[in-house]
Amino acid sequence: MRTPPQALIFDVFGTCVDWRTSIRDAGEALAQDLAFPLGAVDWSAFADAWRARYQPQLETVRDGRRPWLPLDQLHRESLDALLPAFGLTALDETSRTRLNRAWHRLAPWPDVVPGLTRLKRDFIIAPNSNGNIALMVNLAKHAGLPWDAILGAEITRAYKPQPAAYLGCVTALGLMPGSVMMVAAHHGDLIAAAGCGLQTAFVPRPEEHGPRHHADRVDHAERAVAQSYTVVAADFGDLADLLGA
Amino acid sequence: MRTPPQALIFDVFGTCVDWRTSIRDAGEALAQDLAFPLGAVDWSAFADAWRARYQPQLETVRDGRRPWLPLDQLHRESLDALLPAFGLTALDETSRTRLNRAWHRLAPWPDVVPGLTRLKRDFIIAPNSNGNIALMVNLAKHAGLPWDAILGAEITRAYKPQPAAYLGCVTALGLMPGSVMMVAAHHGDLIAAAGCGLQTAFVPRPEEHGPRHHADRVDHAERAVAQSYTVVAADFGDLADLLGA
Repeated sequence: MRTPPQALIFDVFGTCVDWRTSIRDAGEALAQDLAFPLGAVDWSAFADAWRARYQPQLETVRDGRRPWLPLDQLHRESLDALLPAFGLTALDETSRTRLNRAWHRLAPWPDVVPGLTRLKRDFIIAPNSNGNIALMVNLAKHAGLPWDAILGAEITRAYKPQPAAYLGCVTALGLMPGSVMMVAAHHGDLIAAAGCGLQTAFVPRPEEHGPRHHADRVDHAERAVAQSYTVVAADFGDLADLLGA
Repeated sequence: MRTPPQALIFDVFGTCVDWRTSIRDAGEALAQDLAFPLGAVDWSAFADAWRARYQPQLETVRDGRRPWLPLDQLHRESLDALLPAFGLTALDETSRTRLNRAWHRLAPWPDVVPGLTRLKRDFIIAPNSNGNIALMVNLAKHAGLPWDAILGAEITRAYKPQPAAYLGCVTALGLMPGSVMMVAAHHGDLIAAAGCGLQTAFVPRPEEHGPRHHADRVDHAERAVAQSYTVVAADFGDLADLLGA
């Protein structure tokens, strides 16, 4: 391994938290409160459809069509756009706000809080998410993520995988890129970080998209990519072991 | 008292940490390592002289003469400028970097870590300092300040007491000004925050400038000012008591 990093920055959606199950559960709780007929909405499919609009929405900012906007606003635009397909156009403002706020209350994967707690002893730890500061702060309070700082899109005014989204965090920490490690479950995120000179840690989350879908993992076809990472860890506990935390 | 706040944002230099004693100690440690004759430099006076350049330096940014710059850079400019007066022009780059870095390693007042730990259970807590992110992160790691996020000048690109320095933190948290409380030992900071609609907590630090100097406190002349604050607390433990944390 290279010289140990001084700071670890983390992808959050998928890498630290299980957005799909949490959004599904938030939808089911809303449906119950509104006395929808049981099974009226497939909330797992709803979560997938919402997340599917994520990258196209970010792209409207990345390609310069729009100025930087907080992810809360992009989430809300996506929500309003996808409601008709699920027969939910009648949802009122209160319910829409509540659903959008579900992104502030996602559940961490079981290894995340104990792993981060160990890593925090030896390293600066911070999210480098496309989520805005309020979203990340509320999520950290809800999930118990013990961050040292909230970095990411609202600090850098860039969305991953733009280089500024990585280099802006490095600069904010007063470090050099080689002293910072990007931790993510997504190859695209890590390849972009490596391109900026950061160290990389791949932590696969095979359940991110549910039991039937393919998530980024280390399989035969991807072994060549994975070999370029600084470390590959089974989970955050394993990452702490590998980094000697 | 008004409706309880959802977030508390804190002045740091003077309010959370004892910059004067810490800078003095850092100077004395350097002098010892460099085998200066004992008493060659009055490091308390040195700390005072360095801090005295703080507001004039910030003013060069606030009044638009210069673009926003991180406090680390302003501290370094002040350091270079004040060395001749203390017979220290011969200090090399390594020693200057080390002294400037002393601002990343200030000691907290004794009530701060236990008080913040209590407050963190019920509120979002974050620094709203003129210090840059790297400085605040390193200081938090050194002093054990359990912040939920690092807000302040590098987020808002403004220096207190400019209104944007308060309102930018409020916006980043996704809150309204009345849901955020500014905590500080300095009247000017709190009066500016109140002017932006924030709640205010005054926590006097009579020792900030050493035993012989006047610090902001609640005395007869200032009682009228203090009465305009949302709360006045003896220390961070008292603040937690008053806020029911």
